[in-house]
Amino acid sequence: MADHIPLQDFCVADVAVLVNGLSCKDSKTVQANDFFFSGLHLPGNTSNPVGSRVTPVTVTQLPGLNTLGISMARIDYTPWGINPPHTHPRASEILTVLEGTLEVGFITSNPDNRLITKVLSKGDVFVFPVGLVHFQRNVGKVNAVAIAALSSQNPGVITIANAVFGSKPAVSADILAKAFQVDSGVINKLQSKF
Amino acid sequence: MADHIPLQDFCVADVAVLVNGLSCKDSKTVQANDFFFSGLHLPGNTSNPVGSRVTPVTVTQLPGLNTLGISMARIDYTPWGINPPHTHPRASEILTVLEGTLEVGFITSNPDNRLITKVLSKGDVFVFPVGLVHFQRNVGKVNAVAIAALSSQNPGVITIANAVFGSKPAVSADILAKAFQVDSGVINKLQSKF
Amino acid sequence: MADHIPLQDFCVADVAVLVNGLSCKDSKTVQANDFFFSGLHLPGNTSNPVGSRVTPVTVTQLPGLNTLGISMARIDYTPWGINPPHTHPRASEILTVLEGTLEVGFITSNPDNRLITKVLSKGDVFVFPVGLVHFQRNVGKVNAVAIAALSSQNPGVITIANAVFGSKPAVSADILAKAFQVDSGVINKLQSKF
Amino acid sequence: MADHIPLQDFCVADVAVLVNGLSCKDSKTVQANDFFFSGLHLPGNTSNPVGSRVTPVTVTQLPGLNTLGISMARIDYTPWGINPPHTHPRASEILTVLEGTLEVGFITSNPDNRLITKVLSKGDVFVFPVGLVHFQRNVGKVNAVAIAALSSQNPGVITIANAVFGSKPAVSADILAKAFQVDSGVINKLQSKF
Amino acid sequence: MADHIPLQDFCVADVAVLVNGLSCKDSKTVQANDFFFSGLHLPGNTSNPVGSRVTPVTVTQLPGLNTLGISMARIDYTPWGINPPHTHPRASEILTVLEGTLEVGFITSNPDNRLITKVLSKGDVFVFPVGLVHFQRNVGKVNAVAIAALSSQNPGVITIANAVFGSKPAVSADILAKAFQVDSGVINKLQSKF
Amino acid sequence: MADHIPLQDFCVADVAVLVNGLSCKDSKTVQANDFFFSGLHLPGNTSNPVGSRVTPVTVTQLPGLNTLGISMARIDYTPWGINPPHTHPRASEILTVLEGTLEVGFITSNPDNRLITKVLSKGDVFVFPVGLVHFQRNVGKVNAVAIAALSSQNPGVITIANAVFGSKPAVSADILAKAFQVDSGVINKLQSKF
Repeated sequence: MADHIPLQDFCVADVAVLVNGLSCKDSKTVQANDFFFSGLHLPGNTSNPVGSRVTPVTVTQLPGLNTLGISMARIDYTPWGINPPHTHPRASEILTVLEGTLEVGFITSNPDNRLITKVLSKGDVFVFPVGLVHFQRNVGKVNAVAIAALSSQNPGVITIANAVFGSKPAVSADILAKAFQVDSGVINKLQSKF
Repeated sequence: MADHIPLQDFCVADVAVLVNGLSCKDSKTVQANDFFFSGLHLPGNTSNPVGSRVTPVTVTQLPGLNTLGISMARIDYTPWGINPPHTHPRASEILTVLEGTLEVGFITSNPDNRLITKVLSKGDVFVFPVGLVHFQRNVGKVNAVAIAALSSQNPGVITIANAVFGSKPAVSADILAKAFQVDSGVINKLQSKF
Repeated sequence: MADHIPLQDFCVADVAVLVNGLSCKDSKTVQANDFFFSGLHLPGNTSNPVGSRVTPVTVTQLPGLNTLGISMARIDYTPWGINPPHTHPRASEILTVLEGTLEVGFITSNPDNRLITKVLSKGDVFVFPVGLVHFQRNVGKVNAVAIAALSSQNPGVITIANAVFGSKPAVSADILAKAFQVDSGVINKLQSKF
Repeated sequence: MADHIPLQDFCVADVAVLVNGLSCKDSKTVQANDFFFSGLHLPGNTSNPVGSRVTPVTVTQLPGLNTLGISMARIDYTPWGINPPHTHPRASEILTVLEGTLEVGFITSNPDNRLITKVLSKGDVFVFPVGLVHFQRNVGKVNAVAIAALSSQNPGVITIANAVFGSKPAVSADILAKAFQVDSGVINKLQSKF
Repeated sequence: MADHIPLQDFCVADVAVLVNGLSCKDSKTVQANDFFFSGLHLPGNTSNPVGSRVTPVTVTQLPGLNTLGISMARIDYTPWGINPPHTHPRASEILTVLEGTLEVGFITSNPDNRLITKVLSKGDVFVFPVGLVHFQRNVGKVNAVAIAALSSQNPGVITIANAVFGSKPAVSADILAKAFQVDSGVINKLQSKF
Repeated sequence: MADHIPLQDFCVADVAVLVNGLSCKDSKTVQANDFFFSGLHLPGNTSNPVGSRVTPVTVTQLPGLNTLGISMARIDYTPWGINPPHTHPRASEILTVLEGTLEVGFITSNPDNRLITKVLSKGDVFVFPVGLVHFQRNVGKVNAVAIAALSSQNPGVITIANAVFGSKPAVSADILAKAFQVDSGVINKLQSKF
């Protein structure tokens, strides 16, 4: 579930050629800044409907991550803000709470669809296995902050609500009506939000 | 995204010990039946709300698949039946239509959430990349049948509607209300279906 | 034994640069047809000495398979036609019989060289582990058809007879005479066929 | 450079059988606490000669990490404390500074042995490629704290000074004298410290 | 094409449980002899029809190789002795000539089946890609010796002639007659040799 | 811990584009010499402070090794010459003694830092697990020669003394003084040697 195994000390991302992952800068021209990113101490803007913000540090932001199979993110939550149910198609995630109190959970695959959930305080750590639907919610009265790490340079995110009800173009309403076992009116309402 | 690389000719699944994947039968006791499964010509029972049925042939049904990184499935669809939006957390899927006409699609990850869709006739082949939300719908007037293969001995299935609205225990309605941007009444309705 | 782990949602094959596997099209220009192939319902032409035909759907025919670790094939057999002993250097294979009756088998590696064999009817499924010599024969009175899936985007095929007796240039006859423990006359005869 | 690819949703570590990695608990008995660790908000005890302390969260501390290819650690540093030159034989590392100012660096492999170094402030992120010698030093006047994530469930640590001069039993002094091009007296002095 | 990625410093093979590869000895009981094999300086017995002998050092002979993805072999050849056409289903091979002169070759997969061949003298090195049919022949007047290394702890060997004409039970003569395009009499003759 | 899994028969290294590993020559232009290297029978020049010389055969010297996950080396030692403590960040190593007597050893990771050591005679074989510090010393009265194979096309070498005390630019003396628990004078002496 991890990325390429490196075939040299590092392969700082370049963009001249599109390959699986990214091509490499000439190692002679590599500099310390290629392995560097700044700003993860800054709160993200949570003024949005879900009340949370993910600040990612993947190979897009930090080219030295290319081929190394790891990335990081900061997540900010307003009180009762959520990081809505989503999956990472290419990574497991480990998360620690820096500030606040988070309810976290993941759901196992079919047929059990078991919810495994826990309330986390400052300093607690939790792991979300690759590809499973998971979420966090700030259940405290103040802002919460978490640092997460993911086992891919480019883990991908699929926010369930946005992907299913907000794809471009839209999935046919009657497919979704049958999948969610509601009438088209409910689906249209859901699709109008995204 | 594939399974173990085999470290011997084969490692027919045994169940005495729980390891990543499954442990192996003694190769001296292995028989042809360990590599065999029958019944994929039989239509699955599609008398259910979504009008489709998946008949899987994974390492659970065919122990010789252990460590080999592949599995297969038959999918039956009534007219207008759907294989509802789902992901495979551990496999890509290639599908060919044996009978009928299928509308198929997958949705790319954030931020684009682009729907890539196509209508398939008999003999057409389509691929769904690992971890992405995808679906099929029978858009013909007769039953449809497809054969799919997946790049894992145990690809896993996460049916989005069932996992999100039918987990055991349930995800808090207000998390889902915020994620799907509807009121709790709609969420309660959705949860009552699964 | 599988291919690259994807480092993005997909990496539709391009041909501008030669890398391990293939480079990627710009994802913005990707279209549904990149994930599509048609024609697997059409019988292959079996008018040849072995009485079988493989119609492959690998990354060569379906560029969207790039990095995804899977491919498919249709195999047609006349009565008593064979898919002669061969190996896939980079994939395991799972096969299901759509029509007819097939005798299938694979041979384990040294020192046992055990033949594991089975007669398959419609709907039966069998798996051939990576790299092992295997074959199929139509033992019914009518044409047979199978669908196979392989755990690589480019599994490769080495037909034993063709590779050993028909390489270009030819392997020295005395090497083959010693390997097969027959005189050069027999080898020359075998080499003249390929 | 990453760990096993999971072959099921998760494989919570058990200790009954020794395999590559660890065997799995029965998934029916898995609980939320298997994916949980607490205490990463607590400063480690830095009263030691190097003035730093690593608090690891690997599969040993958090059994749910088994097969998932990721782990985490907190590192505390007194002013001028160092995390001495070391390697992780099985992981790359990404690190962010929570408090204080760190000088960090890694050294490329032969023949260049180039030092790539940077001073990091709060919120800065840096990556250390797998297997390369690296270190951190608190160059501020107050305690510093970092969170690191590593691309293995069990990255391993080889502190250079301890491994080379403090192995049990000791490496022959004349081997080290020749390697470090100093006389045995210097080596004996170094060995006496570990 | 390589083996497991190690999840600890080493995993010396044990035989109590059958897993993909082998389970591990308790690391506390590991000794230097677990990483050791002796006798590779001794000529193998080449008194056999092909005039060569492979002395393997795989995980079977050297348990410390478990999970490490490498093994070694010595090959002895009488004048005009051959290491007959064979494949390794799970490894590439690099070979160097210690004594004598070897003609070596490998054959690419279908459809080209190109023979890539070279005469090697003492100190020459050649590589055989994973899964491809390859061979060596002593074309000098004295015994030849080579050291080979393979990219798996258990590469497997499939000697083509033995597997195809000497499997137990035998492959039906008419399958082989059609595959090799000769009459059953020739096949019976070939099968009688193995 | 191994390299790419090949996605075609071979991918002979080209240098037009920088990717993880190397890009491939057009397979039509590939020749036997691309898989060939000569000169491993020639003693390396051991007139240097450590009294040893490694002659590597990696993808740099033998382009056909690209993607195949293996390489080779010859090591020469004068009497009492050493191959100083070093790691390979991307490979395990298997070594056999062609001539002479070698003391070999590797050191396990923290916290044990156990030295596992053995004296090897002609024909003995030993394995060094990936990423661990290891060394060899000629403890005989005559020159010694070994052949080693490594589980990567580009294993990398980090000679501990050179990397730690000879990096360019130098690591701050006070970091090393604290790491090795000696005063700066000793560190300056050590740094002046590299």
